[in-house]
Amino acid sequence: MTRDLKSEARQIFEAGLKAVDPKEAVKRFVAVKGNILRIGEKELDLGEFNHVWAIGAGKASAAMAQAVEEILGDLVSGGLVIVKYDHLAPLQKIRLKEAGHPTPDENGRRATQELADMAAKVDRKDLVLFLLSGGGSALLPMPVESITLEDKMVTTRLLLNSGASIQEMNTIRKHLSQIKGGQLARLAHPATLVSLILSDVVGDPLDVIASGPTVGDPSTFQDCQAVLERYSLTEKVPPTVRTYLEAGIKGEAAETPKPDDTIFSNTYTALVGNNLQALKAAAEEAQVLGYKTLILSSMIEGDTTEAAGFHAALIKEIVRSGHPVRPPACLISGGETTVAVRGKGKGGRNLEFSLAAALELAGLRAVCLLSGGTDGTDGPTDAAGAMVDGDTVSRALEKGLDPREFLAENDSYHFFQHLDDLLITGPTNTNVMDLRVMLVSAHPKTKFLG
Amino acid sequence: MTRDLKSEARQIFEAGLKAVDPKEAVKRFVAVKGNILRIGEKELDLGEFNHVWAIGAGKASAAMAQAVEEILGDLVSGGLVIVKYDHLAPLQKIRLKEAGHPTPDENGRRATQELADMAAKVDRKDLVLFLLSGGGSALLPMPVESITLEDKMVTTRLLLNSGASIQEMNTIRKHLSQIKGGQLARLAHPATLVSLILSDVVGDPLDVIASGPTVGDPSTFQDCQAVLERYSLTEKVPPTVRTYLEAGIKGEAAETPKPDDTIFSNTYTALVGNNLQALKAAAEEAQVLGYKTLILSSMIEGDTTEAAGFHAALIKEIVRSGHPVRPPACLISGGETTVAVRGKGKGGRNLEFSLAAALELAGLRAVCLLSGGTDGTDGPTDAAGAMVDGDTVSRALEKGLDPREFLAENDSYHFFQHLDDLLITGPTNTNVMDLRVMLVSAHPKTKFLG
Repeated sequence: MTRDLKSEARQIFEAGLKAVDPKEAVKRFVAVKGNILRIGEKELDLGEFNHVWAIGAGKASAAMAQAVEEILGDLVSGGLVIVKYDHLAPLQKIRLKEAGHPTPDENGRRATQELADMAAKVDRKDLVLFLLSGGGSALLPMPVESITLEDKMVTTRLLLNSGASIQEMNTIRKHLSQIKGGQLARLAHPATLVSLILSDVVGDPLDVIASGPTVGDPSTFQDCQAVLERYSLTEKVPPTVRTYLEAGIKGEAAETPKPDDTIFSNTYTALVGNNLQALKAAAEEAQVLGYKTLILSSMIEGDTTEAAGFHAALIKEIVRSGHPVRPPACLISGGETTVAVRGKGKGGRNLEFSLAAALELAGLRAVCLLSGGTDGTDGPTDAAGAMVDGDTVSRALEKGLDPREFLAENDSYHFFQHLDDLLITGPTNTNVMDLRVMLVSAHPKTKFLG
Repeated sequence: MTRDLKSEARQIFEAGLKAVDPKEAVKRFVAVKGNILRIGEKELDLGEFNHVWAIGAGKASAAMAQAVEEILGDLVSGGLVIVKYDHLAPLQKIRLKEAGHPTPDENGRRATQELADMAAKVDRKDLVLFLLSGGGSALLPMPVESITLEDKMVTTRLLLNSGASIQEMNTIRKHLSQIKGGQLARLAHPATLVSLILSDVVGDPLDVIASGPTVGDPSTFQDCQAVLERYSLTEKVPPTVRTYLEAGIKGEAAETPKPDDTIFSNTYTALVGNNLQALKAAAEEAQVLGYKTLILSSMIEGDTTEAAGFHAALIKEIVRSGHPVRPPACLISGGETTVAVRGKGKGGRNLEFSLAAALELAGLRAVCLLSGGTDGTDGPTDAAGAMVDGDTVSRALEKGLDPREFLAENDSYHFFQHLDDLLITGPTNTNVMDLRVMLVSAHPKTKFLG
């Protein structure tokens, strides 16, 4: 049997995408039966609430809000979600505000103030659904009163350039915000608060996704001081930031709520979609197509070219010896790698992963690899990624294209454009990082004689 | 049940080692029954031969020769194997010569001349066993007559520093040698020639291992010229080298035998041991211990820290979701990674892999990772590698050791020495690159709620 590996890889990728469509993800996780609102394993009696409000932020939050309206219908009283410009969806009761991403802007600050005011008004008889997705951090700017948005951004940039970790950055960010690090939960208290999260962070750490507006924060003002000292930034941050953090240490500014705070007793946080969910749906599709399928990991990080080599080593072993799984075999992985940009070309991590893999797989028969971003736009391109096989390199060389030159120039987009091997999906309105599908259909010809 | 993961990981590693012990590997592959010599799937009637000779080179070749003597007894007429200084084994009939490695020396040149003379003397009624293992290339120096060993080494160094690939280097090396690139097979023709190879090269390419003395060489003098031109080395190589290669192009020097040459009609090449074989034996042991086991790949290359990150991503996924295999789980991989040395510490790729993995696995329960070189000496150390688990980092910090500092200094040996977590096996007399064992015994606590 000759399989069309590229079209099957695409079919498997699209099954993964479908599972993390924001609307589908919310609808799979949230349902109303009679008076009962089921959210994952949790059941809430809607009769106990006077109102249900939906608030949120993120690129997918409009679509998530749409799902909430469709599920709850008249039971939703209203709400507000903040989306990136042009990431709209038609809503009936929940209002929509557009704001700047990835750089926060004044529209975002005003919309966040409005969202916070709304959260502060709810009471014990209210149910608040908080809809969070990738981009939520930039779309929820709300620095403490004495600090301008500009000063907060300067501080973040200083930390970034000093090599501070994401944990260290978040420690500072949460303490300079009125909404992050669990502070949105404090505002919404004593209402019942349910966070529905579409994760775009490797490993889904709830306190990291958008700096955890509804999750208790173990870090303190003392930790902030330690971070600034560690990177010799105490004298470099804007004076307003230094003054505020000093006030915090003296107990003159509000600490973030800690994880054991009683305000979290009626909050509930649920991942409605993440990378692993996309991988699982893709794996199911691959199994339906007859592939023996392994999910390697949803947590692949690190350098893109190195990661491509690692994946290629597994594909080559399947071809050679039938390990880790015998053909027809499918390997699936996810996560988010990084690209050290050296050239001036156009590309993204999935396009570059595909190009590096093509070089490793050159000459192999009956193998195929697809790497795509679940948001449908890899880097600054209109492609989600690309598809390659053992002929990709020879086809390129025939056309006079040197794959190594394109790789050195970080010009993977144009490489695959020339070959007509771009993976184009259009914008998907979701983002759970990347999804890779590797297929091997040939039976192994074991060279090993032992 | 509480498993002692570290001791089980070590047991699995040692099962892998045992399978590629040079003596055991040869004995498993070669046997005499009556008048029939069985070599893998091939059978030879010993009655057809007047003599059986054993020649060879490599760090393990003394042990391989010992196995040949034990299997064939009086049927061996004699022979010669060239080993690295102090890599001896007691032999009865096959002579042993010691020579320089990794830098070839005059003893090596003389011994190789003797080995070549011996090969040239055999005839149609002789059977020659050629025993090759890691180090064989440096131990078989035999430049063409007009070129000194020094000039050949200068040329190799120029290519290395120019960024030439191993294939390009070998193209030149084979053409400057009287024995590599299939030329030993030409010398031994018309005798029957059986090569028994213990591979220390990723993927076991037979023409690459020790530059393939008994394997046809597709490359030509024209290719040599192209390589020198590509790296602008034509004017930089020693004049003797330039002159010889020019003579070759004019047809005035002997071309290497091509793969379709009739001299290869009665040659036979068998891998008696390779990395994959070690992985398979380790996997069998893990299965006996009750682990669901996957061999990932015997072809893991690339940067050591990056590779550690990918392996850790798989371990973390097992802990989280039971993919790619449910606990109790064992992952096994092999190959050979590289270390970009920046610091002044002491270490090797396995020690550094272990240290980088420890940082990724910090805090995880019921996981363990072992990375060890099958030769028992990782880099310039007396350790094969190290073993780590989720407590390694905290134990180090308690002792005042900062793992990141040791990693930045490439000082993994002293890090693990302080913790008493070095993997010490002593020299193993074999080398099929590296072997990694990863164990997860806890049941996954899936955080994902979808």
